[in-house]
Amino acid sequence: MSRSSFQVPSGISVIPIAGLPEIVQGDEIGLLIVDHARAAGVQVMDGDLIVVAQKVVSKAEGAVKRLSAQTPSVEAMKLADKVEKDNRLVQIILDQTARVVRAVPGVLIVETVHGYVCANAGVDQSNIDGEDIVTTLPEDSDRSARDIRRAIIDAIRGGGDAGRDSAIEIGVLVSDTFNRPWREGSTNVAIGTAGFDPLIDLRGTPDDFDREMLTSTVSLADEVASAAQLVMGESGRVPVAIVRGVRWVAGEFSIGRLHRPAKRDLFR
Amino acid sequence: MSRSSFQVPSGISVIPIAGLPEIVQGDEIGLLIVDHARAAGVQVMDGDLIVVAQKVVSKAEGAVKRLSAQTPSVEAMKLADKVEKDNRLVQIILDQTARVVRAVPGVLIVETVHGYVCANAGVDQSNIDGEDIVTTLPEDSDRSARDIRRAIIDAIRGGGDAGRDSAIEIGVLVSDTFNRPWREGSTNVAIGTAGFDPLIDLRGTPDDFDREMLTSTVSLADEVASAAQLVMGESGRVPVAIVRGVRWVAGEFSIGRLHRPAKRDLFR
Repeated sequence: MSRSSFQVPSGISVIPIAGLPEIVQGDEIGLLIVDHARAAGVQVMDGDLIVVAQKVVSKAEGAVKRLSAQTPSVEAMKLADKVEKDNRLVQIILDQTARVVRAVPGVLIVETVHGYVCANAGVDQSNIDGEDIVTTLPEDSDRSARDIRRAIIDAIRGGGDAGRDSAIEIGVLVSDTFNRPWREGSTNVAIGTAGFDPLIDLRGTPDDFDREMLTSTVSLADEVASAAQLVMGESGRVPVAIVRGVRWVAGEFSIGRLHRPAKRDLFR
Repeated sequence: MSRSSFQVPSGISVIPIAGLPEIVQGDEIGLLIVDHARAAGVQVMDGDLIVVAQKVVSKAEGAVKRLSAQTPSVEAMKLADKVEKDNRLVQIILDQTARVVRAVPGVLIVETVHGYVCANAGVDQSNIDGEDIVTTLPEDSDRSARDIRRAIIDAIRGGGDAGRDSAIEIGVLVSDTFNRPWREGSTNVAIGTAGFDPLIDLRGTPDDFDREMLTSTVSLADEVASAAQLVMGESGRVPVAIVRGVRWVAGEFSIGRLHRPAKRDLFR
């Protein structure tokens, strides 16, 4: 990669987009983002990275489950006993799981069918109206990000924010808060991306003294997600943020770029 | 914690402070930050969080070692064989190590004497003028952050940026880029803090539907470090960034707040 792909920007802004209604299945998140940004006097601009919380994406896509609709398997019941969680919740988690990574009382860490390693397969009980409902992660968060990105670009072109013929390069990422080994406190990470490369590859880039960099890659998308979280908060009241001023490489890339293969991972 | 400690800010700015000279032992980082910020037309303001890269802190504190000055122990030589690294480098790493977490060819992950879990105990060969020199992590990065914070406040009070009697509340954090299990790409994290609480504790905070939050804590300091990295880059050419607009809780806290105790950690 060339050094020019990681030039130092002159400064970054993180702009909260608040006021979205309670999201229900079928809502067009991209359109809501552009409308609510406009209402707040914010225009989506060329170069913006737009971070959207998983929770609203899952709600819009109908990625929700009812605990009361579950019939736990024997496997789910045994695992629920072990981790001391509701066996219907554990059934939903197992339906999203490729491999159990750690299971102890109070903690269930899995590798999901999508390739993330996280607690409870990202199944979330908070901020859902009704104790019986949980969200699951979007089926394909890259696709979710692509759909939102397309809707935003269409809304901008149709809505007079920019000329119909202008090329607006934006990136979109869907984010969720994950906990980590070794360090306390969750951080926001990217679970789906569209329009930009989530990983900066510095391998071969000379450092200040023209020696090869030892730290080889940087998770741009996770750092952008963390920056966004500083205005999004945890509660869901600000489910969207625009991160403006970041240098990024446009193109079609998968969030799989951020999934460390199990064979290169010492903690699975 | 009250909800008011995590109100949504109206927006965040991340401002790079560039142009610092090559740092040598004895340099007063805090003073350099204020001087170079002023030169760039940036004034340190009440509420700012100032992120400083570990590399310049280590250089200013003389936390550097010469490979050629090392006499590797038998333990270092055996471990160096195993991880396929220079046995003098491994000796320096072991001197900083409380416990080896993983050691395989090419990878040496340890818990440092300071309590971080990271590759190579944070010993870094890049961006040091001379192949023979490496930096080690500051002896006490909280103390480093406190010293920098004090110097910045003194420089502001003495320098006319604000009235001598005005109370300027700022936070300082020393950051380094760490790799993680499961996910590719390093992210910038806090290794020392002063003046603010690095952890947001949401336990007991009601969510939008007045149920208790399930995600209990957020690593504010790591998210701020990641936001800063978006302008700092990896090369060290921008070793300082101001993160403005974040809500935080003032007070004396240790970075130990972000160290998950081994007994609560499933990956040690």
